[in-house]
Amino acid sequence: MNAIQYQLGEVADRVEAVLDALLPAGGTLERPLNDAMRYAALGGGKRLRPFLVVAGARLFGTPDTRALRAAAAVEMIHCYSLVHDDLPAMDDDSLRRGRPTCHIAYGEATAILAGDGLLTHAFTVMADPATHPDGGVRADLVAGLAGAAGPLGMVAGQMMDMNVGFGPLDAARVQRLQALKTGALIAFAAEAGAILGQAGAADRAALAAYGRQLGAAFQIIDDVLDATGSAAKMGKAVGKDAEQGKATLVAALGLDPARAAAHEAADRAIAALDSFREPADPLRAIARFVIDRET
Amino acid sequence: MNAIQYQLGEVADRVEAVLDALLPAGGTLERPLNDAMRYAALGGGKRLRPFLVVAGARLFGTPDTRALRAAAAVEMIHCYSLVHDDLPAMDDDSLRRGRPTCHIAYGEATAILAGDGLLTHAFTVMADPATHPDGGVRADLVAGLAGAAGPLGMVAGQMMDMNVGFGPLDAARVQRLQALKTGALIAFAAEAGAILGQAGAADRAALAAYGRQLGAAFQIIDDVLDATGSAAKMGKAVGKDAEQGKATLVAALGLDPARAAAHEAADRAIAALDSFREPADPLRAIARFVIDRET
Repeated sequence: MNAIQYQLGEVADRVEAVLDALLPAGGTLERPLNDAMRYAALGGGKRLRPFLVVAGARLFGTPDTRALRAAAAVEMIHCYSLVHDDLPAMDDDSLRRGRPTCHIAYGEATAILAGDGLLTHAFTVMADPATHPDGGVRADLVAGLAGAAGPLGMVAGQMMDMNVGFGPLDAARVQRLQALKTGALIAFAAEAGAILGQAGAADRAALAAYGRQLGAAFQIIDDVLDATGSAAKMGKAVGKDAEQGKATLVAALGLDPARAAAHEAADRAIAALDSFREPADPLRAIARFVIDRET
Repeated sequence: MNAIQYQLGEVADRVEAVLDALLPAGGTLERPLNDAMRYAALGGGKRLRPFLVVAGARLFGTPDTRALRAAAAVEMIHCYSLVHDDLPAMDDDSLRRGRPTCHIAYGEATAILAGDGLLTHAFTVMADPATHPDGGVRADLVAGLAGAAGPLGMVAGQMMDMNVGFGPLDAARVQRLQALKTGALIAFAAEAGAILGQAGAADRAALAAYGRQLGAAFQIIDDVLDATGSAAKMGKAVGKDAEQGKATLVAALGLDPARAAAHEAADRAIAALDSFREPADPLRAIARFVIDRET
Protein backbone atom coordinates (compact mmCIF):
# COMPACT_ATOMS: atom_id res chain seq x y z
CA MET A 1 0.00 0.00 0.00
CA ASN A 2 1.47 3.34 -1.02
CA ALA A 3 1.21 6.61 0.90
CA ILE A 4 -1.92 7.92 -0.78
CA GLN A 5 -3.76 4.63 -0.27
CA TYR A 6 -2.86 4.84 3.41
CA GLN A 7 -4.18 8.42 3.64
CA LEU A 8 -7.32 7.47 1.74
CA GLY A 9 -7.88 4.57 4.13
CA GLU A 10 -7.36 6.82 7.13
CA VAL A 11 -10.00 9.32 5.98
CA ALA A 12 -12.29 6.42 5.05
CA ASP A 13 -12.07 5.08 8.61
CA ARG A 14 -12.81 8.47 10.11
CA VAL A 15 -15.74 9.25 7.80
CA GLU A 16 -17.11 5.78 8.53
CA ALA A 17 -17.22 6.65 12.24
CA VAL A 18 -18.89 10.00 11.50
CA LEU A 19 -21.48 8.36 9.23
CA ASP A 20 -22.14 5.76 11.91
CA ALA A 21 -22.77 8.51 14.46
CA LEU A 22 -24.92 10.63 12.12
CA LEU A 23 -27.22 7.96 10.69
CA PRO A 24 -30.37 7.04 12.65
CA ALA A 25 -30.32 3.56 14.18
CA GLY A 26 -32.82 1.13 15.63
CA GLY A 27 -36.48 2.13 15.77
CA THR A 28 -39.61 0.02 15.65
CA LEU A 29 -41.82 0.13 12.55
CA GLU A 30 -39.28 2.40 10.82
CA ARG A 31 -36.36 0.11 11.65
CA PRO A 32 -35.95 -1.37 8.13
CA LEU A 33 -35.40 2.18 6.84
CA ASN A 34 -32.59 2.84 9.32
CA ASP A 35 -31.03 -0.58 8.71
CA ALA A 36 -31.14 -0.11 4.94
CA MET A 37 -29.65 3.40 5.10
CA ARG A 38 -26.78 2.09 7.21
CA TYR A 39 -26.32 -0.91 4.92
CA ALA A 40 -26.06 1.41 1.93
CA ALA A 41 -23.77 3.98 3.53
CA LEU A 42 -21.49 2.04 5.86
CA GLY A 43 -18.70 -0.45 5.33
CA GLY A 44 -17.76 0.11 1.74
CA GLY A 45 -16.40 2.25 -1.01
CA LYS A 46 -13.13 4.05 -1.50
CA ARG A 47 -14.56 7.22 0.06
CA LEU A 48 -12.96 9.30 -2.68
CA ARG A 49 -15.40 12.19 -2.25
CA PRO A 50 -14.91 12.44 1.53
CA PHE A 51 -11.15 12.45 0.98
CA LEU A 52 -11.48 15.38 -1.42
CA VAL A 53 -13.54 17.37 1.10
CA VAL A 54 -11.06 16.75 3.93
CA ALA A 55 -7.90 17.26 1.86
CA GLY A 56 -9.35 20.42 0.32
CA ALA A 57 -10.40 21.83 3.68
CA ARG A 58 -6.93 21.23 5.13
CA LEU A 59 -5.49 23.66 2.53
CA PHE A 60 -7.26 26.43 4.44
CA GLY A 61 -6.68 25.19 7.97
CA THR A 62 -10.29 24.05 8.47
CA PRO A 63 -10.60 21.60 11.39
CA ASP A 64 -11.11 17.99 10.27
CA THR A 65 -14.14 17.73 12.60
CA ARG A 66 -16.05 20.16 10.37
CA ALA A 67 -14.73 18.75 7.11
CA LEU A 68 -15.65 15.20 8.10
CA ARG A 69 -19.28 16.21 8.63
CA ALA A 70 -19.43 17.84 5.20
CA ALA A 71 -17.64 14.78 3.82
CA ALA A 72 -20.24 12.48 5.37
CA ALA A 73 -23.03 14.56 3.82
CA VAL A 74 -21.44 14.27 0.37
CA GLU A 75 -20.99 10.52 0.84
CA MET A 76 -24.67 10.13 1.85
CA ILE A 77 -25.61 11.71 -1.48
CA HIS A 78 -23.24 9.40 -3.34
CA CYS A 79 -24.61 6.33 -1.56
CA TYR A 80 -28.24 7.35 -2.17
CA SER A 81 -27.47 7.68 -5.87
CA LEU A 82 -26.05 4.14 -5.96
CA VAL A 83 -29.14 2.73 -4.21
CA HIS A 84 -31.55 4.38 -6.65
CA ASP A 85 -29.39 3.68 -9.72
CA ASP A 86 -29.31 -0.02 -8.80
CA LEU A 87 -33.14 -0.31 -8.60
CA PRO A 88 -34.93 -2.74 -10.95
CA ALA A 89 -36.53 0.17 -12.84
CA MET A 90 -33.11 1.76 -13.34
CA ASP A 91 -29.90 -0.26 -13.92
CA ASP A 92 -31.31 -3.38 -12.21
CA ASP A 93 -28.06 -4.36 -10.49
CA SER A 94 -27.88 -7.05 -7.83
CA LEU A 95 -24.23 -6.70 -6.76
CA ARG A 96 -22.53 -3.62 -5.29
CA ARG A 97 -19.29 -3.43 -3.30
CA GLY A 98 -19.26 -7.22 -3.28
CA ARG A 99 -22.64 -7.46 -1.51
CA PRO A 100 -26.27 -7.69 -2.61
CA THR A 101 -27.61 -4.28 -3.61
CA CYS A 102 -29.92 -2.52 -1.16
CA HIS A 103 -33.18 -3.54 -2.85
CA ILE A 104 -32.03 -7.18 -2.98
CA ALA A 105 -31.23 -7.08 0.74
CA TYR A 106 -34.22 -4.99 1.95
CA GLY A 107 -36.83 -4.99 -0.81
CA GLU A 108 -37.62 -2.34 -3.34
CA ALA A 109 -39.88 -0.08 -1.24
CA THR A 110 -37.36 0.12 1.60
CA ALA A 111 -34.52 0.77 -0.86
CA ILE A 112 -36.40 3.67 -2.45
CA LEU A 113 -37.04 5.11 1.01
CA ALA A 114 -33.46 4.49 2.14
CA GLY A 115 -32.25 6.49 -0.87
CA ASP A 116 -34.72 9.28 -0.10
CA GLY A 117 -33.62 9.19 3.54
CA LEU A 118 -29.89 9.42 2.78
CA LEU A 119 -30.48 12.22 0.28
CA THR A 120 -32.52 14.25 2.75
CA HIS A 121 -30.34 13.53 5.77
CA ALA A 122 -27.30 14.89 3.93
CA PHE A 123 -28.91 18.33 4.08
CA THR A 124 -29.73 17.95 7.78
CA VAL A 125 -26.04 17.32 8.38
CA MET A 126 -24.82 20.10 6.12
CA ALA A 127 -27.17 22.72 7.62
CA ASP A 128 -26.26 21.87 11.22
CA PRO A 129 -24.18 24.49 13.07
CA ALA A 130 -21.70 21.72 14.00
CA THR A 131 -20.64 21.64 10.33
CA HIS A 132 -19.73 25.34 10.37
CA PRO A 133 -20.56 28.12 12.81
CA ASP A 134 -21.28 30.61 10.00
CA GLY A 135 -24.81 30.29 8.61
CA GLY A 136 -23.75 31.73 5.27
CA VAL A 137 -21.13 29.00 4.88
CA ARG A 138 -23.70 26.32 5.71
CA ALA A 139 -26.16 27.76 3.18
CA ASP A 140 -23.37 27.87 0.55
CA LEU A 141 -22.53 24.23 1.26
CA VAL A 142 -26.20 23.27 0.91
CA ALA A 143 -26.57 25.24 -2.32
CA GLY A 144 -23.44 23.65 -3.79
CA LEU A 145 -24.42 20.13 -2.78
CA ALA A 146 -28.01 20.46 -4.00
CA GLY A 147 -26.87 22.01 -7.27
CA ALA A 148 -24.38 19.20 -7.91
CA ALA A 149 -26.83 16.45 -6.96
CA GLY A 150 -30.08 17.82 -8.37
CA PRO A 151 -31.91 18.14 -11.68
CA LEU A 152 -29.19 20.38 -13.13
CA GLY A 153 -26.48 17.94 -11.99
CA MET A 154 -26.40 14.27 -11.02
CA VAL A 155 -30.11 13.52 -11.48
CA ALA A 156 -30.00 15.01 -14.98
CA GLY A 157 -26.96 12.88 -15.77
CA GLN A 158 -28.72 9.73 -14.62
CA MET A 159 -31.78 10.65 -16.71
CA MET A 160 -29.55 11.10 -19.77
CA ASP A 161 -27.88 7.79 -19.04
CA MET A 162 -31.26 6.00 -18.86
CA ASN A 163 -32.43 7.76 -21.98
CA VAL A 164 -29.41 7.42 -24.25
CA GLY A 165 -30.51 4.09 -25.75
CA PHE A 166 -28.51 2.42 -28.44
CA GLY A 167 -28.15 5.47 -30.67
CA PRO A 168 -24.84 6.68 -32.07
CA LEU A 169 -22.50 7.91 -29.35
CA ASP A 170 -20.30 10.90 -29.75
CA ALA A 171 -17.54 11.72 -27.29
CA ALA A 172 -18.75 15.26 -26.53
CA ARG A 173 -22.20 14.02 -25.54
CA VAL A 174 -20.72 11.28 -23.36
CA GLN A 175 -18.50 13.81 -21.62
CA ARG A 176 -21.43 16.12 -20.93
CA LEU A 177 -23.47 13.23 -19.54
CA GLN A 178 -20.63 12.10 -17.28
CA ALA A 179 -19.85 15.64 -16.14
CA LEU A 180 -23.41 15.74 -14.79
CA LYS A 181 -23.76 12.17 -13.58
CA THR A 182 -20.51 11.82 -11.63
CA GLY A 183 -18.42 14.93 -12.32
CA ALA A 184 -20.65 17.46 -10.58
CA LEU A 185 -20.60 15.77 -7.18
CA ILE A 186 -16.85 15.08 -7.32
CA ALA A 187 -16.25 18.71 -8.30
CA PHE A 188 -18.40 19.87 -5.39
CA ALA A 189 -16.50 17.59 -2.98
CA ALA A 190 -13.27 19.33 -3.94
CA GLU A 191 -14.89 22.78 -3.85
CA ALA A 192 -16.47 22.12 -0.45
CA GLY A 193 -13.08 22.41 1.21
CA ALA A 194 -12.76 25.95 -0.11
CA ILE A 195 -16.30 26.82 1.03
CA LEU A 196 -15.59 25.45 4.52
CA GLY A 197 -12.33 27.39 4.58
CA GLN A 198 -14.02 30.60 3.40
CA ALA A 199 -11.38 30.74 0.69
CA GLY A 200 -11.22 33.44 -1.96
CA ALA A 201 -12.96 33.09 -5.31
CA ALA A 202 -9.78 32.10 -7.16
CA ASP A 203 -8.92 29.28 -4.76
CA ARG A 204 -12.51 28.06 -4.83
CA ALA A 205 -12.57 28.08 -8.63
CA ALA A 206 -9.22 26.25 -8.76
CA LEU A 207 -10.47 23.44 -6.52
CA ALA A 208 -13.71 23.17 -8.49
CA ALA A 209 -11.72 22.95 -11.74
CA TYR A 210 -9.49 20.28 -10.20
CA GLY A 211 -12.61 18.37 -9.13
CA ARG A 212 -14.23 18.56 -12.57
CA GLN A 213 -11.13 17.17 -14.27
CA LEU A 214 -10.63 14.54 -11.59
CA GLY A 215 -14.26 13.51 -11.97
CA ALA A 216 -13.82 13.12 -15.72
CA ALA A 217 -10.68 11.01 -15.23
CA PHE A 218 -12.39 8.90 -12.58
CA GLN A 219 -15.42 8.15 -14.73
CA ILE A 220 -13.41 7.24 -17.82
CA ILE A 221 -11.31 4.79 -15.79
CA ASP A 222 -14.55 3.41 -14.30
CA ASP A 223 -15.73 2.68 -17.81
CA VAL A 224 -12.34 1.19 -18.76
CA LEU A 225 -12.54 -1.10 -15.72
CA ASP A 226 -16.11 -2.08 -16.62
CA ALA A 227 -14.79 -3.14 -20.02
CA THR A 228 -11.63 -4.88 -18.77
CA GLY A 229 -12.02 -5.75 -15.07
CA SER A 230 -13.43 -8.80 -13.31
CA ALA A 231 -16.57 -8.84 -11.17
CA ALA A 232 -14.65 -10.51 -8.33
CA LYS A 233 -12.15 -7.68 -8.19
CA MET A 234 -14.68 -4.87 -8.72
CA GLY A 235 -17.32 -6.15 -6.32
CA LYS A 236 -20.02 -5.37 -8.88
CA ALA A 237 -21.16 -6.64 -12.24
CA VAL A 238 -18.83 -5.74 -15.11
CA GLY A 239 -19.27 -5.65 -18.88
CA LYS A 240 -22.72 -4.16 -18.39
CA ASP A 241 -21.96 -0.90 -20.19
CA ALA A 242 -21.43 -2.61 -23.53
CA GLU A 243 -24.31 -5.01 -22.93
CA GLN A 244 -26.73 -2.19 -22.13
CA GLY A 245 -25.39 0.15 -24.82
CA LYS A 246 -24.34 2.71 -22.20
CA ALA A 247 -22.75 5.95 -23.29
CA THR A 248 -19.06 5.61 -22.37
CA LEU A 249 -15.89 7.04 -23.85
CA VAL A 250 -14.69 3.46 -24.29
CA ALA A 251 -17.64 2.86 -26.61
CA ALA A 252 -17.23 6.21 -28.36
CA LEU A 253 -13.44 6.24 -28.80
CA GLY A 254 -12.10 2.75 -28.03
CA LEU A 255 -10.05 1.58 -25.06
CA ASP A 256 -6.66 3.23 -25.65
CA PRO A 257 -7.96 6.68 -26.67
CA ALA A 258 -10.26 6.56 -23.62
CA ARG A 259 -7.29 5.78 -21.37
CA ALA A 260 -5.36 8.64 -22.96
CA ALA A 261 -8.30 11.01 -22.33
CA ALA A 262 -8.30 9.97 -18.66
CA HIS A 263 -4.58 10.73 -18.36
CA GLU A 264 -5.10 14.14 -19.96
CA ALA A 265 -7.94 14.94 -17.55
CA ALA A 266 -5.78 13.91 -14.57
CA ASP A 267 -2.95 16.12 -15.86
CA ARG A 268 -5.36 19.05 -16.11
CA ALA A 269 -6.63 18.32 -12.59
CA ILE A 270 -3.07 18.47 -11.25
CA ALA A 271 -2.33 21.63 -13.23
CA ALA A 272 -5.34 23.35 -11.62
CA LEU A 273 -3.63 22.99 -8.22
CA ASP A 274 -0.47 24.94 -9.11
CA SER A 275 -1.17 27.89 -6.81
CA PHE A 276 -1.46 25.67 -3.73
CA ARG A 277 2.09 24.26 -3.92
CA GLU A 278 3.11 21.36 -1.60
CA PRO A 279 0.05 21.36 0.69
CA ALA A 280 -2.00 20.12 -2.28
CA ASP A 281 0.22 17.05 -2.78
CA PRO A 282 -2.45 14.65 -1.43
CA LEU A 283 -4.88 15.97 -4.06
CA ARG A 284 -2.24 15.47 -6.76
CA ALA A 285 -1.56 11.95 -5.52
CA ILE A 286 -5.29 11.16 -5.67
CA ALA A 287 -5.41 12.24 -9.31
CA ARG A 288 -2.63 9.75 -10.08
CA PHE A 289 -4.28 7.08 -7.94
CA VAL A 290 -7.56 7.48 -9.81
CA ILE A 291 -5.76 6.75 -13.08
CA ASP A 292 -3.70 3.84 -11.81
CA ARG A 293 -6.38 2.06 -9.78
CA GLU A 294 -7.43 -1.46 -10.67
CA THR A 295 -10.79 -1.47 -8.83
CA MET B 1 -66.52 29.93 -2.55
CA ASN B 2 -65.91 31.42 0.89
CA ALA B 3 -63.19 33.89 1.87
CA ILE B 4 -60.58 31.33 2.91
CA GLN B 5 -61.03 29.32 -0.27
CA TYR B 6 -60.46 32.52 -2.23
CA GLN B 7 -57.27 33.27 -0.26
CA LEU B 8 -56.08 29.71 -0.67
CA GLY B 9 -56.69 29.92 -4.40
CA GLU B 10 -54.82 33.21 -4.62
CA VAL B 11 -51.70 31.79 -2.92
CA ALA B 12 -52.02 28.64 -5.05
CA ASP B 13 -51.91 30.74 -8.21
CA ARG B 14 -48.89 32.67 -7.04
CA VAL B 15 -46.95 29.61 -5.88
CA GLU B 16 -47.79 27.95 -9.20
CA ALA B 17 -46.06 30.82 -11.02
CA VAL B 18 -43.04 30.60 -8.71
CA LEU B 19 -42.78 26.81 -9.17
CA ASP B 20 -43.04 27.29 -12.92
CA ALA B 21 -40.17 29.76 -12.82
CA LEU B 22 -38.00 27.67 -10.50
CA LEU B 23 -38.32 24.24 -12.13
CA PRO B 24 -35.96 23.39 -14.99
CA ALA B 25 -37.60 23.13 -18.40
CA GLY B 26 -36.77 21.69 -21.80
CA GLY B 27 -33.42 19.99 -22.28
CA THR B 28 -32.38 17.22 -24.64
CA LEU B 29 -31.62 13.79 -23.21
CA GLU B 30 -32.68 14.97 -19.74
CA ARG B 31 -35.95 16.40 -20.99
CA PRO B 32 -38.21 13.60 -19.62
CA LEU B 33 -36.88 14.41 -16.15
CA ASN B 34 -37.82 18.07 -16.45
CA ASP B 35 -41.20 17.26 -17.96
CA ALA B 36 -41.99 14.74 -15.23
CA MET B 37 -40.94 17.11 -12.44
CA ARG B 38 -43.21 19.80 -13.85
CA TYR B 39 -46.05 17.30 -14.33
CA ALA B 40 -45.76 16.26 -10.69
CA ALA B 41 -45.42 19.76 -9.23
CA LEU B 42 -47.57 22.00 -11.43
CA GLY B 43 -51.31 22.32 -11.97
CA GLY B 44 -52.76 20.60 -8.98
CA GLY B 45 -53.31 20.31 -5.28
CA LYS B 46 -54.81 22.64 -2.73
CA ARG B 47 -51.37 24.09 -1.94
CA LEU B 48 -52.13 23.94 1.77
CA ARG B 49 -48.46 23.91 2.77
CA PRO B 50 -47.54 26.95 0.65
CA PHE B 51 -50.49 28.82 2.16
CA LEU B 52 -49.19 28.07 5.65
CA VAL B 53 -45.73 29.39 4.80
CA VAL B 54 -47.09 32.60 3.28
CA ALA B 55 -49.76 33.26 5.92
CA GLY B 56 -47.25 32.53 8.71
CA ALA B 57 -44.61 34.80 7.21
CA ARG B 58 -47.11 37.67 6.90
CA LEU B 59 -47.50 37.66 10.71
CA PHE B 60 -43.95 39.00 10.88
CA GLY B 61 -44.08 41.33 7.90
CA THR B 62 -41.93 39.09 5.70
CA PRO B 63 -42.28 39.98 2.00
CA ASP B 64 -44.40 37.48 0.04
CA THR B 65 -41.63 37.22 -2.56
CA ARG B 66 -39.42 35.46 -0.01
CA ALA B 67 -42.22 33.42 1.53
CA LEU B 68 -43.35 32.18 -1.88
CA ARG B 69 -39.90 30.77 -2.62
CA ALA B 70 -39.84 28.91 0.70
CA ALA B 71 -43.43 27.83 -0.02
CA ALA B 72 -42.40 26.47 -3.41
CA ALA B 73 -39.55 24.52 -1.80
CA VAL B 74 -41.94 22.94 0.71
CA GLU B 75 -44.37 22.08 -2.08
CA MET B 76 -41.59 20.44 -4.12
CA ILE B 77 -40.94 18.16 -1.14
CA HIS B 78 -44.65 17.37 -0.84
CA CYS B 79 -44.93 16.59 -4.56
CA TYR B 80 -41.81 14.40 -4.55
CA SER B 81 -43.31 12.39 -1.68
CA LEU B 82 -46.49 11.80 -3.67
CA VAL B 83 -44.52 10.64 -6.73
CA HIS B 84 -42.48 8.13 -4.72
CA ASP B 85 -45.44 6.99 -2.57
CA ASP B 86 -47.44 6.24 -5.73
CA LEU B 87 -44.71 3.99 -7.23
CA PRO B 88 -45.54 0.33 -7.94
CA ALA B 89 -43.19 -0.84 -5.16
CA MET B 90 -44.93 1.49 -2.69
CA ASP B 91 -48.70 2.22 -2.77
CA ASP B 92 -48.99 1.36 -6.48
CA ASP B 93 -51.48 4.13 -7.31
CA SER B 94 -52.42 5.07 -10.85
CA LEU B 95 -54.61 8.13 -10.18
CA ARG B 96 -53.56 11.38 -8.48
CA ARG B 97 -55.26 14.76 -8.65
CA GLY B 98 -57.55 13.33 -11.33
CA ARG B 99 -54.65 12.45 -13.63
CA PRO B 100 -52.42 9.42 -14.20
CA THR B 101 -49.69 9.25 -11.56
CA CYS B 102 -46.17 10.26 -12.60
CA HIS B 103 -44.89 6.72 -13.22
CA ILE B 104 -47.96 5.91 -15.33
CA ALA B 105 -47.36 9.02 -17.42
CA TYR B 106 -43.54 8.91 -17.64
CA GLY B 107 -42.43 5.41 -16.65
CA GLU B 108 -41.01 4.19 -13.40
CA ALA B 109 -37.35 5.19 -13.86
CA THR B 110 -38.24 8.75 -14.80
CA ALA B 111 -40.70 9.00 -11.89
CA ILE B 112 -38.04 7.89 -9.40
CA LEU B 113 -35.66 10.48 -10.82
CA ALA B 114 -38.35 13.18 -10.90
CA GLY B 115 -38.96 12.58 -7.19
CA ASP B 116 -35.23 12.72 -6.49
CA GLY B 117 -34.99 15.88 -8.57
CA LEU B 118 -37.86 17.68 -6.80
CA LEU B 119 -36.50 16.67 -3.40
CA THR B 120 -33.03 17.97 -4.19
CA HIS B 121 -34.16 21.10 -5.98
CA ALA B 122 -36.16 22.17 -2.92
CA PHE B 123 -32.84 22.65 -1.11
CA THR B 124 -31.36 24.59 -4.00
CA VAL B 125 -34.29 26.99 -3.74
CA MET B 126 -34.22 27.21 0.06
CA ALA B 127 -30.46 27.88 0.22
CA ASP B 128 -30.55 30.62 -2.44
CA PRO B 129 -29.97 34.18 -1.17
CA ALA B 130 -33.17 35.24 -2.98
CA THR B 131 -35.13 33.27 -0.33
CA HIS B 132 -33.58 35.27 2.51
CA PRO B 133 -30.55 37.58 2.62
CA ASP B 134 -29.37 36.14 5.98
CA GLY B 135 -27.38 32.92 5.58
CA GLY B 136 -28.30 31.76 9.07
CA VAL B 137 -32.01 32.01 8.20
CA ARG B 138 -31.43 30.02 5.02
CA ALA B 139 -29.52 27.33 6.91
CA ASP B 140 -32.32 27.19 9.52
CA LEU B 141 -34.90 26.78 6.78
CA VAL B 142 -32.87 23.96 5.22
CA ALA B 143 -32.39 22.24 8.59
CA GLY B 144 -36.10 22.47 9.37
CA LEU B 145 -37.17 21.24 5.95
CA ALA B 146 -34.68 18.36 5.88
CA GLY B 147 -35.59 17.35 9.42
CA ALA B 148 -39.30 17.29 8.63
CA ALA B 149 -38.84 15.43 5.35
CA GLY B 150 -36.04 13.04 6.25
CA PRO B 151 -35.49 9.74 8.06
CA LEU B 152 -36.61 11.21 11.39
CA GLY B 153 -39.74 12.67 9.76
CA MET B 154 -41.70 11.99 6.59
CA VAL B 155 -39.54 9.16 5.24
CA ALA B 156 -39.78 7.34 8.59
CA GLY B 157 -43.57 7.78 8.52
CA GLN B 158 -43.79 6.32 5.03
CA MET B 159 -41.62 3.38 6.10
CA MET B 160 -43.90 2.75 9.07
CA ASP B 161 -46.91 2.98 6.79
CA MET B 162 -45.43 0.39 4.39
CA ASN B 163 -44.45 -1.82 7.30
CA VAL B 164 -47.57 -1.73 9.44
CA GLY B 165 -49.20 -4.73 7.77
CA PHE B 166 -52.51 -6.08 8.93
CA GLY B 167 -51.61 -6.25 12.63
CA PRO B 168 -53.79 -4.77 15.36
CA LEU B 169 -53.97 -0.99 15.19
CA ASP B 170 -53.92 1.22 18.19
CA ALA B 171 -54.71 4.91 18.01
CA ALA B 172 -51.46 6.10 19.63
CA ARG B 173 -49.36 4.24 17.07
CA VAL B 174 -51.44 5.59 14.21
CA GLN B 175 -51.05 9.13 15.50
CA ARG B 176 -47.28 8.75 15.79
CA LEU B 177 -47.09 7.37 12.24
CA GLN B 178 -49.18 10.22 10.86
CA ALA B 179 -47.29 12.85 12.84
CA LEU B 180 -44.19 11.71 10.95
CA LYS B 181 -45.70 10.95 7.56
CA THR B 182 -47.73 14.14 7.04
CA GLY B 183 -47.62 16.12 10.29
CA ALA B 184 -43.93 16.99 10.28
CA LEU B 185 -43.95 18.74 6.89
CA ILE B 186 -47.19 20.62 7.63
CA ALA B 187 -45.75 21.70 10.99
CA PHE B 188 -42.59 22.90 9.27
CA ALA B 189 -44.63 24.83 6.69
CA ALA B 190 -46.26 26.78 9.52
CA GLU B 191 -42.98 27.22 11.39
CA ALA B 192 -41.18 28.39 8.24
CA GLY B 193 -43.02 31.69 8.40
CA ALA B 194 -41.53 32.34 11.83
CA ILE B 195 -38.05 31.36 10.62
CA LEU B 196 -38.35 33.70 7.62
CA GLY B 197 -39.60 36.45 9.93
CA GLN B 198 -36.77 35.86 12.42
CA ALA B 199 -39.46 35.59 15.09
CA GLY B 200 -38.75 34.89 18.75
CA ALA B 201 -38.68 31.36 20.13
CA ALA B 202 -42.20 31.58 21.62
CA ASP B 203 -43.79 32.66 18.34
CA ARG B 204 -41.87 30.01 16.43
CA ALA B 205 -42.97 27.32 18.88
CA ALA B 206 -46.60 28.53 18.70
CA LEU B 207 -46.65 28.24 14.91
CA ALA B 208 -45.02 24.82 15.02
CA ALA B 209 -47.62 23.64 17.57
CA TYR B 210 -50.38 25.02 15.36
CA GLY B 211 -48.91 23.16 12.40
CA ARG B 212 -48.62 19.86 14.26
CA GLN B 213 -52.27 19.98 15.34
CA LEU B 214 -53.40 21.14 11.91
CA GLY B 215 -51.45 18.29 10.33
CA ALA B 216 -53.15 15.78 12.62
CA ALA B 217 -56.61 17.19 11.79
CA PHE B 218 -55.79 17.20 8.08
CA GLN B 219 -54.64 13.59 8.02
CA ILE B 220 -57.62 12.27 10.00
CA ILE B 221 -60.03 14.00 7.60
CA ASP B 222 -58.01 12.58 4.70
CA ASP B 223 -58.63 9.12 6.10
CA VAL B 224 -62.32 9.91 6.69
CA LEU B 225 -62.62 11.03 3.07
CA ASP B 226 -60.85 7.88 1.89
CA ALA B 227 -63.49 5.88 3.75
CA THR B 228 -66.50 7.97 2.68
CA GLY B 229 -65.61 9.97 -0.45
CA SER B 230 -65.85 9.17 -4.15
CA ALA B 231 -62.91 8.77 -6.51
CA ALA B 232 -64.48 11.24 -8.94
CA LYS B 233 -64.60 13.96 -6.29
CA MET B 234 -61.20 13.17 -4.75
CA GLY B 235 -59.29 12.75 -8.00
CA LYS B 236 -57.60 9.66 -6.61
CA ALA B 237 -58.52 6.12 -5.67
CA VAL B 238 -60.58 5.85 -2.46
CA GLY B 239 -61.34 2.99 -0.10
CA LYS B 240 -57.74 1.86 -0.42
CA ASP B 241 -56.88 2.32 3.26
CA ALA B 242 -59.33 -0.35 4.40
CA GLU B 243 -58.44 -2.59 1.45
CA GLN B 244 -54.71 -2.38 2.18
CA GLY B 245 -55.12 -2.58 5.97
CA LYS B 246 -53.57 0.89 6.37
CA ALA B 247 -53.11 2.35 9.82
CA THR B 248 -55.76 5.07 10.10
CA LEU B 249 -57.72 6.50 13.01
CA VAL B 250 -60.90 5.51 11.16
CA ALA B 251 -59.78 1.89 11.36
CA ALA B 252 -58.59 2.20 14.96
CA LEU B 253 -61.52 4.18 16.40
CA GLY B 254 -64.36 4.15 13.88
CA LEU B 255 -65.70 7.00 11.74
CA ASP B 256 -67.40 9.27 14.31
CA PRO B 257 -64.67 9.12 16.98
CA ALA B 258 -62.10 9.84 14.24
CA ARG B 259 -64.10 12.89 13.12
CA ALA B 260 -64.29 14.04 16.74
CA ALA B 261 -60.51 13.65 17.10
CA ALA B 262 -60.01 15.81 13.99
CA HIS B 263 -62.23 18.53 15.45
CA GLU B 264 -60.29 18.44 18.72
CA ALA B 265 -56.97 18.73 16.87
CA ALA B 266 -58.28 21.71 14.87
CA ASP B 267 -59.44 23.36 18.10
CA ARG B 268 -55.99 22.89 19.59
CA ALA B 269 -54.43 24.31 16.41
CA ILE B 270 -56.58 27.43 16.72
CA ALA B 271 -55.81 27.71 20.43
CA ALA B 272 -52.07 27.71 19.69
CA LEU B 273 -52.53 30.97 17.75
CA ASP B 274 -53.98 33.00 20.64
CA SER B 275 -51.01 35.33 21.03
CA PHE B 276 -51.19 36.44 17.38
CA ARG B 277 -54.73 37.89 17.60
CA GLU B 278 -56.51 39.02 14.36
CA PRO B 279 -53.54 38.79 11.97
CA ALA B 280 -53.67 34.99 12.39
CA ASP B 281 -57.30 34.77 11.24
CA PRO B 282 -56.36 33.19 7.89
CA LEU B 283 -54.55 30.41 9.77
CA ARG B 284 -57.63 29.90 11.97
CA ALA B 285 -59.87 29.81 8.92
CA ILE B 286 -57.62 27.17 7.32
CA ALA B 287 -57.99 24.98 10.40
CA ARG B 288 -61.78 25.13 10.01
CA PHE B 289 -61.49 24.61 6.25
CA VAL B 290 -59.39 21.48 6.74
CA ILE B 291 -62.14 19.99 8.90
CA ASP B 292 -65.05 20.99 6.66
CA ARG B 293 -63.52 20.11 3.29
CA GLU B 294 -65.13 17.48 1.09
CA THR B 295 -62.09 16.74 -1.11
